[in-house]
Amino acid sequence: MTSGVLGNPAVHESPTERVALAYRRIAEVDRPEVWITLRAQDDVVAEAAEIERRLAAGEALPLAGTLVAVKDNIDVAGLPTTAACPEFAYPAEATAAAIERLLAAGALVLGKTNLDQFATGLVGTRSPYGAVRHAKRPELISGGSSSGSAVAVALGIADIGIGTDTAGSGRVPAALHGIVGLKATLGIIPAHGVVPACADYDAVTVFATDLGRAVAAATIMAGPEVRDPRSRAWPADVRLAAPQGARLAVPRAADLTALSPEYRIAFAQTIVAVEKSGITTAEIDISGLLDAARLLYDGAIVAERYTAVGAFLDTAPASADPTVASIIDAARATTGPEFAEDLDALARARSAAAQSLRGFDGLLLPTTTEHPSIAAVLADPIGINRRMGTYTNFCNLLDMAAVAVPGSPTAAGDPFGVMVVVPAFADQVAVDLAARIVGTESPALVAEGVELAVFGAHLRGQPLHWQLEDIGARFTGEIRTTDAYRLTALDMVPPKPGLVRHGPGLGAPILGELFQVSTAGLGGFLAALPPPMALTSIELSDGRSVIGFACTYDAAAAATDITAFGGWKAYLQRQN
Amino acid sequence: MTSGVLGNPAVHESPTERVALAYRRIAEVDRPEVWITLRAQDDVVAEAAEIERRLAAGEALPLAGTLVAVKDNIDVAGLPTTAACPEFAYPAEATAAAIERLLAAGALVLGKTNLDQFATGLVGTRSPYGAVRHAKRPELISGGSSSGSAVAVALGIADIGIGTDTAGSGRVPAALHGIVGLKATLGIIPAHGVVPACADYDAVTVFATDLGRAVAAATIMAGPEVRDPRSRAWPADVRLAAPQGARLAVPRAADLTALSPEYRIAFAQTIVAVEKSGITTAEIDISGLLDAARLLYDGAIVAERYTAVGAFLDTAPASADPTVASIIDAARATTGPEFAEDLDALARARSAAAQSLRGFDGLLLPTTTEHPSIAAVLADPIGINRRMGTYTNFCNLLDMAAVAVPGSPTAAGDPFGVMVVVPAFADQVAVDLAARIVGTESPALVAEGVELAVFGAHLRGQPLHWQLEDIGARFTGEIRTTDAYRLTALDMVPPKPGLVRHGPGLGAPILGELFQVSTAGLGGFLAALPPPMALTSIELSDGRSVIGFACTYDAAAAATDITAFGGWKAYLQRQN
Repeated sequence: MTSGVLGNPAVHESPTERVALAYRRIAEVDRPEVWITLRAQDDVVAEAAEIERRLAAGEALPLAGTLVAVKDNIDVAGLPTTAACPEFAYPAEATAAAIERLLAAGALVLGKTNLDQFATGLVGTRSPYGAVRHAKRPELISGGSSSGSAVAVALGIADIGIGTDTAGSGRVPAALHGIVGLKATLGIIPAHGVVPACADYDAVTVFATDLGRAVAAATIMAGPEVRDPRSRAWPADVRLAAPQGARLAVPRAADLTALSPEYRIAFAQTIVAVEKSGITTAEIDISGLLDAARLLYDGAIVAERYTAVGAFLDTAPASADPTVASIIDAARATTGPEFAEDLDALARARSAAAQSLRGFDGLLLPTTTEHPSIAAVLADPIGINRRMGTYTNFCNLLDMAAVAVPGSPTAAGDPFGVMVVVPAFADQVAVDLAARIVGTESPALVAEGVELAVFGAHLRGQPLHWQLEDIGARFTGEIRTTDAYRLTALDMVPPKPGLVRHGPGLGAPILGELFQVSTAGLGGFLAALPPPMALTSIELSDGRSVIGFACTYDAAAAATDITAFGGWKAYLQRQN
Repeated sequence: MTSGVLGNPAVHESPTERVALAYRRIAEVDRPEVWITLRAQDDVVAEAAEIERRLAAGEALPLAGTLVAVKDNIDVAGLPTTAACPEFAYPAEATAAAIERLLAAGALVLGKTNLDQFATGLVGTRSPYGAVRHAKRPELISGGSSSGSAVAVALGIADIGIGTDTAGSGRVPAALHGIVGLKATLGIIPAHGVVPACADYDAVTVFATDLGRAVAAATIMAGPEVRDPRSRAWPADVRLAAPQGARLAVPRAADLTALSPEYRIAFAQTIVAVEKSGITTAEIDISGLLDAARLLYDGAIVAERYTAVGAFLDTAPASADPTVASIIDAARATTGPEFAEDLDALARARSAAAQSLRGFDGLLLPTTTEHPSIAAVLADPIGINRRMGTYTNFCNLLDMAAVAVPGSPTAAGDPFGVMVVVPAFADQVAVDLAARIVGTESPALVAEGVELAVFGAHLRGQPLHWQLEDIGARFTGEIRTTDAYRLTALDMVPPKPGLVRHGPGLGAPILGELFQVSTAGLGGFLAALPPPMALTSIELSDGRSVIGFACTYDAAAAATDITAFGGWKAYLQRQN
């Protein structure tokens, strides 16, 4: 029996076998601090067996047997939620909406992972359950606050690690481990069932060793959720692909001084590699973004952290992390007018950020500034943490999405991470550009839009293909019509074919390309359609019907029949 | 020379003549408290003469000669902005973006109007420039805070009054005067150049005696503005019309106890009249909305008022209104955690409001609760004001738009006002329903979307017309094609015509209907298009080309030619 682990054909073990391997690996690595609650192996095996039964019964379970580590500020029914504070713990009665969706797709939860207490920190050391050590170099920090979930993935135990990210918690540990961290636009993955850090700026995130896995899980977790009041749907004009000739903004040198010398070199080398991948880069001044970032901890917005758990911490629980407690306690002293002032500053920063990225498809940034030792962080728990969030802190405040992937390693061969940061809802653009940077095929994250079949000047490489790029259209494959169609060469500039339906058997299968486009993109495209082109339902050889290009009767009647070529590109080539 | 006052053919005076009439009226009514700064007549006449010169030179000035009263918390270059506090006054260097757009369209500003100080109040009595008396019954309040602008319109001085609305200031005075108050979705009309009350919840609004004038001005003021960080564009799926069979939610009796007995009767009578206009109503529980409303003054969000002008008021200016000063002073004491808690409550209330209005096109509410005397308000400045905002306070907090229009008058013949309240960006739906309630043709507010021509089953009254209603399509008129088209009757259920282009002179002008649809609406419509229908560029008899219905060649070839009927409805009728 094959597992459906994220559609990965390389996975040959059954779900029950995968669970057994995971528990063997857990024992082997001896990293007890990764887990706050590790489930009993038998319980997980029983669930895996049930998944196998459902697969055998023919059910489609896209994540069948996918092993998940869940950060312990996210509810899983039947397990305690501690947020890394034993006195805070409560037994979760319902499972968080995002996790529920993973389970419905056949995933299996191994347990709940350690974190910087109340998700406050980027280091992974702020927990009474122990500092989470780095997967490869245990004297160094793992990064946080989603420390356990990242290390469970980096150690090869879990396929995906679920984290949360307010200030960078779903990205910094990815950077330090050379794995992927995906933080979608706020509200896209529901935050229902999550202990809030700053409720307005909390995102549920995914770690995985490769982008395909992270995106597959994120796609399943994404979508409106009535139990999350901040849940948002993709807009009608959502972009479904990055353009071929993409442009990324990068910070000028003056905005990179927070980086360690090793990371500064690695970032420069990453930019060179990014340029080689065909992406154009250009420097911009990001000081406005970095200033906005400071509003998260140095301003009054940190009061959201007090609202979340302040009353509890006021009871002075013995296992409160002193650094976390001091941050949240300071939030108590903020005033309403200060909060209002910072909201105003944020509104201005958000608008300025949108301005500064105009003309770019996104922003390439180092994910974090350095990789310190646990000892160093314990000696300076606030200063290092603050510096490490330099490039991650502003993202949620300014309503942006980010995909963190490995950049060029340091001279010593250590991982160095970069992020593709994009405006809200441009998540697919970020995924596509991240895929180009790491050199993999880009998976589809945004399951939205409608199909459009093209047969002529809009094919890839043809003169009007840019119109599809303009509306963020995503190429999904080559297609053929049924034999009901005839192709004609219209007398136009640029040259275009006219596809005309004559009826079954009266034409030939014609080769075309299929694209996924947003509804607004399709509407705008149609509105600009010049005569004699038309859009209509086209029958494909695979039995489906999709909207695609045709032309008006009179134009086709006056044109040359080129059906015999079977497609426009073949016709163009034979002409030469 | 005719003026272009909002395209009103009833206006025969030239701009200079209109200015003269306005100043005569100003003298005649003897209401000095309406104005904080009334411009010198000669200055306005000079501008009117310049407008006349531009009209004579052929310029298109849609608001040529429209007389505007501007609330004195909105900047007009060259005039002081006082916000009704002499010590706060500053000479405005730039004109607010919204006013700039009116001026560019040919409007003339008469002066700056009185208001509840710092736009804090709904009564019109909180100003050192004097309580603004009601236009018809001077012993009663005018309503506020946009008191002067409303009274300038109600007295027949100004064509439009520009106000602001955080808690109802652009609607309550409209209700008390039986005029129209339009408060668009936050961010649609830029708030650049406005003294903030609560920067996140301030809207620039319009008063006019009729809906057409209010909407014409709002359309010109609407649109993204880079100088307003909270500026928003209409979304790609913006609705451009209310459906024919519209449904409005109305509050259950338990939520109407704040109304005076007279207003309670008037509201019941308004509902009867609304039902007669063809709109269906159904009661819902709006207690969640009313609870959310209290967050504006009773919670910490009032801190935004402190942020706006608190530091100034801390200097204890002599002309500070004591009620306003006490409200803003209390805001100083709010804490950051309280603010964060209220933001959280707001997020939940926003989501709950969206749920409760599902299945409705909007919510019909009384605009305010009563019409008190100035003496009564001076005796109880907080209590009456608070009650009067019962139904207006929540609107901006919950990101909704509202159009305030006259409802059925009271038994004594006094005005009573109602609002159509809709979710963000459904402004056109609110305008359309308000127009049905007052029995006028509905003007287009949202200048967005693309054109779609239909010729058969999608015509008004035909079986598939609901598909256009579903996407919020707006009927804009009948059209005819050129004589290049032939019409066929396709053999389908429901019956449909197929329009086929044969070429100039080879067909006949075919009658159809034109609709305005959002780009997303058009894209979704196209995606669902069944064979053999097609959408293509259609040449109209007026020389324009628009996207419209055609059909594939093979289907038309097999169908009956009905070109001679000149249109689908004529064909259907002759069949009977």
